[in-house]
Amino acid sequence: MTLIDNAVYVDGVRVPDPHTLDETYSLMHERGGMAWIGLYRPDAGEIHSIETEFGLHHLAVEDALTGHQRAKLERYGDTLFVVLRPARYLDAEERVEFGEVHVFIGPSFVVTVRHAEKPDLGAVRHRLEGNPELLKLGPEAVLYAIVDEVVDEYGPVVAGLQNDIDEIEKQLFGGDPDVSRRIYDLIGEVMDFQRAAHPLAAMLEALLRGAEKYHVDLEVQRGLRDVLDHALSLAGHADAFRATLQNALTVHSTLTTQQQNDEMRRISEANLTLAEDTRKLAEASIAQGDQVKKISSWAAIIFAPSLIAGIYGMNFDYMPELHWVFGYPMAIGGMVVLAGALYTVFRRNHWL
Amino acid sequence: MTLIDNAVYVDGVRVPDPHTLDETYSLMHERGGMAWIGLYRPDAGEIHSIETEFGLHHLAVEDALTGHQRAKLERYGDTLFVVLRPARYLDAEERVEFGEVHVFIGPSFVVTVRHAEKPDLGAVRHRLEGNPELLKLGPEAVLYAIVDEVVDEYGPVVAGLQNDIDEIEKQLFGGDPDVSRRIYDLIGEVMDFQRAAHPLAAMLEALLRGAEKYHVDLEVQRGLRDVLDHALSLAGHADAFRATLQNALTVHSTLTTQQQNDEMRRISEANLTLAEDTRKLAEASIAQGDQVKKISSWAAIIFAPSLIAGIYGMNFDYMPELHWVFGYPMAIGGMVVLAGALYTVFRRNHWL
Amino acid sequence: MTLIDNAVYVDGVRVPDPHTLDETYSLMHERGGMAWIGLYRPDAGEIHSIETEFGLHHLAVEDALTGHQRAKLERYGDTLFVVLRPARYLDAEERVEFGEVHVFIGPSFVVTVRHAEKPDLGAVRHRLEGNPELLKLGPEAVLYAIVDEVVDEYGPVVAGLQNDIDEIEKQLFGGDPDVSRRIYDLIGEVMDFQRAAHPLAAMLEALLRGAEKYHVDLEVQRGLRDVLDHALSLAGHADAFRATLQNALTVHSTLTTQQQNDEMRRISEANLTLAEDTRKLAEASIAQGDQVKKISSWAAIIFAPSLIAGIYGMNFDYMPELHWVFGYPMAIGGMVVLAGALYTVFRRNHWL
Amino acid sequence: MTLIDNAVYVDGVRVPDPHTLDETYSLMHERGGMAWIGLYRPDAGEIHSIETEFGLHHLAVEDALTGHQRAKLERYGDTLFVVLRPARYLDAEERVEFGEVHVFIGPSFVVTVRHAEKPDLGAVRHRLEGNPELLKLGPEAVLYAIVDEVVDEYGPVVAGLQNDIDEIEKQLFGGDPDVSRRIYDLIGEVMDFQRAAHPLAAMLEALLRGAEKYHVDLEVQRGLRDVLDHALSLAGHADAFRATLQNALTVHSTLTTQQQNDEMRRISEANLTLAEDTRKLAEASIAQGDQVKKISSWAAIIFAPSLIAGIYGMNFDYMPELHWVFGYPMAIGGMVVLAGALYTVFRRNHWL
Amino acid sequence: MTLIDNAVYVDGVRVPDPHTLDETYSLMHERGGMAWIGLYRPDAGEIHSIETEFGLHHLAVEDALTGHQRAKLERYGDTLFVVLRPARYLDAEERVEFGEVHVFIGPSFVVTVRHAEKPDLGAVRHRLEGNPELLKLGPEAVLYAIVDEVVDEYGPVVAGLQNDIDEIEKQLFGGDPDVSRRIYDLIGEVMDFQRAAHPLAAMLEALLRGAEKYHVDLEVQRGLRDVLDHALSLAGHADAFRATLQNALTVHSTLTTQQQNDEMRRISEANLTLAEDTRKLAEASIAQGDQVKKISSWAAIIFAPSLIAGIYGMNFDYMPELHWVFGYPMAIGGMVVLAGALYTVFRRNHWL
Ligand SMILES: [Mg+2]
Ligand SMILES: [Mg+2]
Ligand SMILES: [Mg+2]
Ligand SMILES: [Mg+2]
Ligand SMILES: [Mg+2]
Ligand SMILES: [Mg+2]
Ligand SMILES: [Mg+2]
Ligand SMILES: [Mg+2]
Ligand SMILES: [Mg+2]
Ligand SMILES: [Mg+2]
Ligand SMILES: [Mg+2]
Ligand SMILES: [Mg+2]
Ligand SMILES: [Mg+2]
Ligand SMILES: [Mg+2]
Ligand SMILES: [Mg+2]
Ligand SMILES: [Mg+2]
Ligand SMILES: [Mg+2]
Ligand SMILES: [Mg+2]
Ligand SMILES: [Mg+2]
Ligand SMILES: [Mg+2]
Ligand SMILES: [Mg+2]
Ligand SMILES: [Mg+2]
Ligand SMILES: [Mg+2]
Ligand SMILES: [Mg+2]
Ligand SMILES: [Mg+2]
Ligand SMILES: [Mg+2]
Ligand SMILES: [Mg+2]
Ligand SMILES: [Mg+2]
Ligand SMILES: [Mg+2]
Ligand SMILES: [Mg+2]
Ligand SMILES: [Mg+2]
Repeated sequence: MTLIDNAVYVDGVRVPDPHTLDETYSLMHERGGMAWIGLYRPDAGEIHSIETEFGLHHLAVEDALTGHQRAKLERYGDTLFVVLRPARYLDAEERVEFGEVHVFIGPSFVVTVRHAEKPDLGAVRHRLEGNPELLKLGPEAVLYAIVDEVVDEYGPVVAGLQNDIDEIEKQLFGGDPDVSRRIYDLIGEVMDFQRAAHPLAAMLEALLRGAEKYHVDLEVQRGLRDVLDHALSLAGHADAFRATLQNALTVHSTLTTQQQNDEMRRISEANLTLAEDTRKLAEASIAQGDQVKKISSWAAIIFAPSLIAGIYGMNFDYMPELHWVFGYPMAIGGMVVLAGALYTVFRRNHWL
Repeated sequence: MTLIDNAVYVDGVRVPDPHTLDETYSLMHERGGMAWIGLYRPDAGEIHSIETEFGLHHLAVEDALTGHQRAKLERYGDTLFVVLRPARYLDAEERVEFGEVHVFIGPSFVVTVRHAEKPDLGAVRHRLEGNPELLKLGPEAVLYAIVDEVVDEYGPVVAGLQNDIDEIEKQLFGGDPDVSRRIYDLIGEVMDFQRAAHPLAAMLEALLRGAEKYHVDLEVQRGLRDVLDHALSLAGHADAFRATLQNALTVHSTLTTQQQNDEMRRISEANLTLAEDTRKLAEASIAQGDQVKKISSWAAIIFAPSLIAGIYGMNFDYMPELHWVFGYPMAIGGMVVLAGALYTVFRRNHWL
Repeated sequence: MTLIDNAVYVDGVRVPDPHTLDETYSLMHERGGMAWIGLYRPDAGEIHSIETEFGLHHLAVEDALTGHQRAKLERYGDTLFVVLRPARYLDAEERVEFGEVHVFIGPSFVVTVRHAEKPDLGAVRHRLEGNPELLKLGPEAVLYAIVDEVVDEYGPVVAGLQNDIDEIEKQLFGGDPDVSRRIYDLIGEVMDFQRAAHPLAAMLEALLRGAEKYHVDLEVQRGLRDVLDHALSLAGHADAFRATLQNALTVHSTLTTQQQNDEMRRISEANLTLAEDTRKLAEASIAQGDQVKKISSWAAIIFAPSLIAGIYGMNFDYMPELHWVFGYPMAIGGMVVLAGALYTVFRRNHWL
Repeated sequence: MTLIDNAVYVDGVRVPDPHTLDETYSLMHERGGMAWIGLYRPDAGEIHSIETEFGLHHLAVEDALTGHQRAKLERYGDTLFVVLRPARYLDAEERVEFGEVHVFIGPSFVVTVRHAEKPDLGAVRHRLEGNPELLKLGPEAVLYAIVDEVVDEYGPVVAGLQNDIDEIEKQLFGGDPDVSRRIYDLIGEVMDFQRAAHPLAAMLEALLRGAEKYHVDLEVQRGLRDVLDHALSLAGHADAFRATLQNALTVHSTLTTQQQNDEMRRISEANLTLAEDTRKLAEASIAQGDQVKKISSWAAIIFAPSLIAGIYGMNFDYMPELHWVFGYPMAIGGMVVLAGALYTVFRRNHWL
Repeated sequence: MTLIDNAVYVDGVRVPDPHTLDETYSLMHERGGMAWIGLYRPDAGEIHSIETEFGLHHLAVEDALTGHQRAKLERYGDTLFVVLRPARYLDAEERVEFGEVHVFIGPSFVVTVRHAEKPDLGAVRHRLEGNPELLKLGPEAVLYAIVDEVVDEYGPVVAGLQNDIDEIEKQLFGGDPDVSRRIYDLIGEVMDFQRAAHPLAAMLEALLRGAEKYHVDLEVQRGLRDVLDHALSLAGHADAFRATLQNALTVHSTLTTQQQNDEMRRISEANLTLAEDTRKLAEASIAQGDQVKKISSWAAIIFAPSLIAGIYGMNFDYMPELHWVFGYPMAIGGMVVLAGALYTVFRRNHWL
């Protein structure tokens, strides 16, 4: 059953509850009171009796059944059709969840059609029943009380968004690279909230502009103006959130480049060390090459005479030089000449 | 033949179809009914009889023949000329395709000129013929039904765009580098859609502002307001899409820089490894150079005495030292002195 | 001579051309017709007779002589002063070139002052002379025809800009780094065009707002509304071009960073190869160093005994060890001990 | 006690101070004067007597007790409820601190409710008591004086922000990488200030628009216009600060990339040096390799004949070659042939 | 003395100059003329006599003494108080310097208070004295002439800004990295100019709106409209400059990244060369290592037999092998076996 509550109020006081809608209608007519019927996701059949009794316009009823409407206000003769978009903040998902409530305001009736858990219309009814002076002002006072509840419920949404923005700022300047996704997603939520809050404020302004013409009670007007003031304040916060998050996106881009600079500085340091080490290595290698040349040269200079010594150390019987008187000095001389010749050649080739 | 449908309605009910346009005109006059003539891409000749009969203004007819108009509303005396821009979403190409339909509304006639497949005016006519109460309200009721159809057809366009934006967000945070082209192109489509939806809403607002003055039936006014509400809601979505896609562009730029940071970190790691390996190489090379020097030095120290031994191992007959009593110790001493001298030299040169 | 054309029209028909401006004035008065005088860049002297005859205001004349005005509309008594900014697109230079035309509209005269080749006022006059019904409506019909021509000439400008934007998009996604200059310059041109098209539309709106008050003929009003519609459409395109080009600038920045990522990936690959090759080099170098140590060690182990053999191969007469019975085994033993000692030392130093 | 000051003024002159609020009320009625009651953070109980006496509206009182309101202006019958947001700049923290003051203006009373140290209402009262001509104009003159004080106190805020922006510009172009956080935070503060200054100006404009209707004294109107002028001037500065800081954010991003370019140029230089050194190293290494081959080859060519010499230096009794007449030339020939063969082989292998 | 000029005009003609302000007042009253008093930075004392004589409002006088006002227009009874912000362009510093001039316009007087060198009020007075027809129209004609001068002086400012923007574009696309500071600073100047030009245009619009109500002469109205037109044109230029410079900032950021790409390409080339050289070096080094192994191996193979030859070349008396018949072949065999064994070992270790 989608009928949540169903009451008649006379002079702001609830009379004993009717058992059926038809009883409501007759009670309302007999006692000259105001009916307030609360529905939850009704279907076309369920709303039909109400539509007929109160002469609701079929386009408004269609909207109320279909849902997915913007916050808006439409007059059909002396009936007012209002769409409200309550919201709550799901902090774990960082998502603004929107509900939808439709309100029909006639000269002597209020019909509320709720599509989500929010707003808490039971609480609104309860508060109003505790304030007969206000309730006596009729259906528009009920509208005021509902809109007030919807806007009051926007408060925690704004607080939740502010809180997440504060966290984001910490993340942002703490160097977390994943913050861009969070910022991007939160901008989406803030934009959704802006698209709810601004039309609501515009709707309240339209309602207040028409208040004189439609003889809305002065106290109800003042109440609506108070709600409008609250809505404008919250919308102003949302606008600021949007701008702040856009800046956070820009700053994040710069900080990302700065992290790059740090990384690049590390590379730069490594490259300078590398270049220095490579230079040392090249120098060592070239010096080593020089030494290899020097050593080999000296080895040749020393070794070549050894060959002469080896030759004259051979034991052949017939080696005439061995018997020459000047054989020995000649051999030593040969050694010196050979070493000198090599030394000269190596000097010329810059091996020494 | 561009004449799609041609009917006369009396009190909201279709009378037996006339065979020619001339029959339509006389039927309309005799029975006091409303003519509804539907054309598809007519040329100047084909529209001439209608233009004359209904006194259509030549500038409006020129627009209807030329096409490429913005959504707009123009009054010529008691004739209303309306241009509508129907749209459909070609999901495969991610493109919004726009059509164009022109509607002439006179006191007792409706002429529709269609330039594309959309909107489905046959369906509109069919629905209206099933609702004589509405049709009875005359030509402006037909206009309302057509505009309603056009705006209803915008719904899938918005849904298609939303769907592609969701895909883009997955691509974006999944690191696909080609997403910027998709974002850029989709912004173009969203902009095209905005340029269709906003003038349509403005046109409906203008129509409603003039409704009292031009005695538009109250129910038609309410219908138009309902359509306007729908159009504003869709235009609001398009505006949000635009902002979201612009942010996606910004975020993509940041994410691209972040990918660069990752790449840079890889380079940085490689460079540090490289620098470390080069340092090791340089150390090894320098150590190796030292060893080469040491080895060569010791080789020289050992080899030089060998030369003396080689010399005194020669077999010359006349080698006086061989016969000296202290020849042998002298040779050994010479070897030690030579080795010691080399050792001293090498120590001084830091080769040892 | 700056007088381009000079005619009097009676009931929409051109009467035989006067020879001088004075003839024009008297003809106009005698026949009760409308004078249309066309000037090209006149100087103060040349405009003086017209200024006096028609009572043109000196501030308007000053504007017409000086040029460099915005599109605007000013009333001086029953004279209207209109400044128009015709444009054409120089595709080779990708530049929008603006002209300027001033129009004075009095109860029975039109004076046009042209400062550039565009708009083609000769063609306008020719078309109007072929349409006496329109021309009969008087000076404001001439104004309408001129403004229509100016706005029609904006069409090719928009087409040319669209064409260049299409080319730019190809360049952009084709990776051309020079596209930013082209985008930047084209934004400048689009801005110039916006600054011409928007004031023109505003001027037409002002003209239409005052149309009732100043008794502008209904058909002329409709014509002006048609031109306004065209101007708004073109201005809408220009606005979209601007937004598109701004996005192209943003996308270009992202694509440039992406090119950087590709380049960085190339560096990254090169660096990894380099690091791998350096590691191999270091390993080879270190292994080589080890071998050098081993080889040198073994060379020393083998060579040291050679020195002993060399010593005992010397031929001194007095070498007591040679005559010892155990000289030979002792020498071999000495060799083995020397080699073993070296081996032990090298092992300890980890050279072996 | 939250009652800060409590006085009655007759013809602009303060009469002897009443001791209690009740005395104030009677004094006010007897003497036909104006009461001015100043409160500091009252609670509901404390404000109750005032609420009753002056008929303050409960919604306004609720706002005054709760705080956290936007600057606003509400009329409740002949009472005006004004919320003001004074501000001061905490330079050390670079933060704009906002206070809140609520003012109730009735025909013969002023009630001020202050929630922060600012604005200095004591000073306002003191200045006004020194200007009885102004004070005589009644409660709205007091409102003017308070708003004037609030706006005057905005002056140092704007000056402080300007000063920090100047510092930021120095930091920005001095290359400080931390400036982005400072810019980001200061934008937040400027936005807060904009959200205070713009509503205040709007409120003053609303007040002035209603001035004729509500018979506000002409001099008070002029004073309010003067304050409005000041407020607009300050709001204009804040708007410019916002735009300037946004540009600073953009410029900072570019400068960060430029620093990267510099770093990259350093890397580039290091890499070129490195490549050059590596090339030298490679050349030296290859040249060294060639020399090692050459040296080894020559060593083999020289050493191989030594082996033959060694063999024929052995002292075996039975070595037939030693006794051959051509043994010696044969050995020398063998040496030459061996060396020649090795030379040929090495040449072929390109070791020489 | 701050009194710059002090004259009385009767029917647009200057009468003999009064010597004191008191003479001016009486002259003005006697002759029914208009006084025009020009002051330069007066102090409170100096302005007092004028304030009293003409009944200037103290708030306006306060503004005129304090300065630092926005361009604005305030009516005090039949006196008009106008603040104007003249400007000139200091091209060397690329700075727009603003002056301030205050004008009091009464039924028969003009008081000008100048705070800077600009505007050249002497020239204005001189031109007006040459045009008695205009001057005869009274104080508002003087106001028109002054505003005209102020706006005419804005022309060179716009030209100077345009010129610097042209230079900046050259710098930008010429690759100058310092252009961002110049752009940033010039945006600041353009913003300052916008904040002067837009309020001035708004002020002129307000003046023209009130022109009928306050009986401003038609010719003066036309003159003011001409000035407004000029002001709007200049403000339009300034707005375009702002947008152009913002784009230049964006383009600069992209070009900076492009320069980075070029630098990166240089690094990339260097790295590829480096990697190639390192690969060559590694190959050379490894090849060299192989050769070292080969050479050492062959050295060992040749050297080891030498040791045997050395041993049997020793001259010990008691070496039994020397006397064996097969001693010599055995030694040669030992050499061959030793060399063969080493060869086998080295092959197995892949040193050969
Ligand atoms: Mg509330
Ligand atoms: Mg949270
Ligand atoms: Mg989202
Ligand atoms: Mg959401
Ligand atoms: Mg409140
Ligand atoms: Mg409340
Ligand atoms: Mg619909
Ligand atoms: Mg799709
Ligand atoms: Mg596109
Ligand atoms: Mg498209
Ligand atoms: Mg609906
Ligand atoms: Mg519907
Ligand atoms: Mg980068
Ligand atoms: Mg046209
Ligand atoms: Mg082209
Ligand atoms: Mg340009
Ligand atoms: Mg241009
Ligand atoms: Mg048209
Ligand atoms: Mg046309
Ligand atoms: Mg002040
Ligand atoms: Mg500071
Ligand atoms: Mg903050
Ligand atoms: Mg703050
Ligand atoms: Mg002031
Ligand atoms: Mg003041
Ligand atoms: Mg001027
Ligand atoms: Mg310059
Ligand atoms: Mg600056
Ligand atoms: Mg400045
Ligand atoms: Mg002018
Ligand atoms: Mg002028």
